[in-house]
Amino acid sequence: MNEDRKAGEDYIVIKALENGVTIIGLTRGKETKFHHTEKLDRGEIMIAQFTEHTSAVKIRGRAELLTRHGRVSNAE
Amino acid sequence: MNEDRKAGEDYIVIKALENGVTIIGLTRGKETKFHHTEKLDRGEIMIAQFTEHTSAVKIRGRAELLTRHGRVSNAE
Amino acid sequence: MNEDRKAGEDYIVIKALENGVTIIGLTRGKETKFHHTEKLDRGEIMIAQFTEHTSAVKIRGRAELLTRHGRVSNAE
Amino acid sequence: MNEDRKAGEDYIVIKALENGVTIIGLTRGKETKFHHTEKLDRGEIMIAQFTEHTSAVKIRGRAELLTRHGRVSNAE
Amino acid sequence: MNEDRKAGEDYIVIKALENGVTIIGLTRGKETKFHHTEKLDRGEIMIAQFTEHTSAVKIRGRAELLTRHGRVSNAE
Amino acid sequence: MNEDRKAGEDYIVIKALENGVTIIGLTRGKETKFHHTEKLDRGEIMIAQFTEHTSAVKIRGRAELLTRHGRVSNAE
Amino acid sequence: MNEDRKAGEDYIVIKALENGVTIIGLTRGKETKFHHTEKLDRGEIMIAQFTEHTSAVKIRGRAELLTRHGRVSNAE
Amino acid sequence: MNEDRKAGEDYIVIKALENGVTIIGLTRGKETKFHHTEKLDRGEIMIAQFTEHTSAVKIRGRAELLTRHGRVSNAE
Amino acid sequence: MNEDRKAGEDYIVIKALENGVTIIGLTRGKETKFHHTEKLDRGEIMIAQFTEHTSAVKIRGRAELLTRHGRVSNAE
Amino acid sequence: MNEDRKAGEDYIVIKALENGVTIIGLTRGKETKFHHTEKLDRGEIMIAQFTEHTSAVKIRGRAELLTRHGRVSNAE
Amino acid sequence: MNEDRKAGEDYIVIKALENGVTIIGLTRGKETKFHHTEKLDRGEIMIAQFTEHTSAVKIRGRAELLTRHGRVSNAE
Amino acid sequence: MNEDRKAGEDYIVIKALENGVTIIGLTRGKETKFHHTEKLDRGEIMIAQFTEHTSAVKIRGRAELLTRHGRVSNAE
Repeated sequence: MNEDRKAGEDYIVIKALENGVTIIGLTRGKETKFHHTEKLDRGEIMIAQFTEHTSAVKIRGRAELLTRHGRVSNAE
Repeated sequence: MNEDRKAGEDYIVIKALENGVTIIGLTRGKETKFHHTEKLDRGEIMIAQFTEHTSAVKIRGRAELLTRHGRVSNAE
Repeated sequence: MNEDRKAGEDYIVIKALENGVTIIGLTRGKETKFHHTEKLDRGEIMIAQFTEHTSAVKIRGRAELLTRHGRVSNAE
Repeated sequence: MNEDRKAGEDYIVIKALENGVTIIGLTRGKETKFHHTEKLDRGEIMIAQFTEHTSAVKIRGRAELLTRHGRVSNAE
Repeated sequence: MNEDRKAGEDYIVIKALENGVTIIGLTRGKETKFHHTEKLDRGEIMIAQFTEHTSAVKIRGRAELLTRHGRVSNAE
Repeated sequence: MNEDRKAGEDYIVIKALENGVTIIGLTRGKETKFHHTEKLDRGEIMIAQFTEHTSAVKIRGRAELLTRHGRVSNAE
Repeated sequence: MNEDRKAGEDYIVIKALENGVTIIGLTRGKETKFHHTEKLDRGEIMIAQFTEHTSAVKIRGRAELLTRHGRVSNAE
Repeated sequence: MNEDRKAGEDYIVIKALENGVTIIGLTRGKETKFHHTEKLDRGEIMIAQFTEHTSAVKIRGRAELLTRHGRVSNAE
Repeated sequence: MNEDRKAGEDYIVIKALENGVTIIGLTRGKETKFHHTEKLDRGEIMIAQFTEHTSAVKIRGRAELLTRHGRVSNAE
Repeated sequence: MNEDRKAGEDYIVIKALENGVTIIGLTRGKETKFHHTEKLDRGEIMIAQFTEHTSAVKIRGRAELLTRHGRVSNAE
Repeated sequence: MNEDRKAGEDYIVIKALENGVTIIGLTRGKETKFHHTEKLDRGEIMIAQFTEHTSAVKIRGRAELLTRHGRVSNAE
Repeated sequence: MNEDRKAGEDYIVIKALENGVTIIGLTRGKETKFHHTEKLDRGEIMIAQFTEHTSAVKIRGRAELLTRHGRVSNAE
């Protein structure tokens, strides 16, 4: 990936609402596989960009998300 | 696909409202076939970009979506 | 089609309101023919981009659409 | 037409309010002739782009349209 | 005209409010002449782009227009 | 004029409120002369672009205009 | 002036509120001189672009203007 | 100045509220000198662009201005 | 400075609220010095652009300013 | 990374609501590892950009965030 | 710095609310040092751009600021 | 860094609410270290840009910030 662009891309904000929230990065490309897993405990916040290695993100556990298309929580 | 652009594209947010929600990526190109399937359990959230391999996404099971054109749920 | 652009184009969101909703892709170019058909059952959601092969989409059966120009349903 | 642009152009949404709604594509260029006709039955929805072959569209029969400039219906 | 641009340009929407509404395309260039005439019956809708051959459009008969600058009707 | 741009430029909408409304195109360039005159009868609507030949338009007779800067009527 | 740009530039709209409204184009460049005068009678409307020959416009007589910065009238 | 840009630049609108309003163009460049003076009588309106020769404008006498940053009058 | 850009830049509007308002242009570059002073009497208005010679402006005396960031007056 | 862009990218604002708030930068690239840790005490504020070395940020401890997608706090 | 851009950049507006307000320009680059100091008396207003020599500005004394991100005063 | 861009980038505004507010610039690049510290006394305001040397800023002591994403104070 061209270095000029990668620092400026959009990001999502994930706030864990319980211990053990899992954020799983899925690989971009022909095959979609897990390539990275991040664990968050209650109250931890992660701000993550899509990258050239990640084209999808899966979130397990109660969390609140801030995205370009609004807020969503699975704790409701 | 040029690496410069692929990290910055739009994404959709899918929140599963029951176990076994299926997200199916359909291939871009002359033939439209299934190329990837992702399973979500209740409360799991997936944030997914369109990619050079995927030009359509099909969602089975009760879910809430956040998209560029608003929110939609099939649980109503 | 240049790979750089095809992942970032606009999309429409289609929610089936009954079984057997048919989404038909019509070919771009001098002749306009059916080139792909997708079936949705009640509650299934499809998010589809226009592609270099598709310049029109036809929807049969009760459905709700989210588009750049607003929402429309044929179930009203 | 350059392939890069043609998937991303604007579209109109047409919902048929009766059987036999006819959507007629008129040719771009010096001569304006019919080049394609699509029939919609009641409740069918068509989402159509302008293309390099079509610079005007004519709609016969009761329908509702969603366009860049708002909604219009001939059933009022 | 460069093919890249011509499918994406702005359009106007014309709804005929009586039979025999006439839409007349006037030629672009040094001389402004009629080059195409389209007839609409009551309720028919036409969506038309400006093209490299047309720089003005004249509408005769009762009609409603949707344009970039708002709606206008001559039936008021 | 480069063909790429001329179909996409801004336009004005003129609705004649009486018979004999005259729309006069004035030439662009060092000398400003009449180069085209169009007559509208009551209720006729004209949608006209500025072109490489026209840099000013004069309207005689009662009419309503829709422009980028709002609506104006001389019938008030 | 490059032909590509000159048809798409901004314009002002002038409605004469009395007979003999004078619109005077002043030359662009080192010397600012009158280069064109247009007379409007009551109710006549002129839509005029700035051009490569005109960098200022002077209006004499009662008139209403629509501009990018709002409306103004000297008849108040 | 490149001819392509000079016709499309921003402008200010000045309405004279008394006789003898003076609009003075000041030269761009190392030295700031008067290079043009325009006199307006009561009710006269001037629409003026900045040019390659003018980087400041001074207004003497009671007037109302419309600018990009709002309206201002010295008659209050 | 490239001539293409200098006529289109942003400007500030200064209205003198008393006699002897002083507008001082400070030089751009390593050293910041006075390079031009303009005097305004009560009610006079000056519209001034930043230029390649001026990167700061100082105003002495009671005045009202219109800027990109809003209005401000030192007479309050 | 090209030096032209890196100073202008988006940033997030983090206000620590207790002592010992930890801000952890995760490496961009195939492997996602911790590469920098910053500690904030109660009331300290950090404003941080994504960089070519950081594609995700993790926050531990009670904090308030200001981001492009709104505000979020884990102290609620 | 390229001359084309430097006249059009953003600016801040500073109004002194007491005598002796000091505006200090700090140098851009590896070392951040004072390079210019400007004194304002009560009511004086300064409009200042960032330049290639200044990447930070420090203000001492009671003042009101107008910036891209809103207004702020230290006199409250 | 290219000189063309560095004067126009975004900035943050920091108002000290007590004596001894510290603004610490952290280095951009592989290693994140302190490279500059600025002290503000009560009421002093600093307006600072990100630069090619600074990718994060840390603020100690009671202060109010104006940023692209809104206002924040640690004095609440």
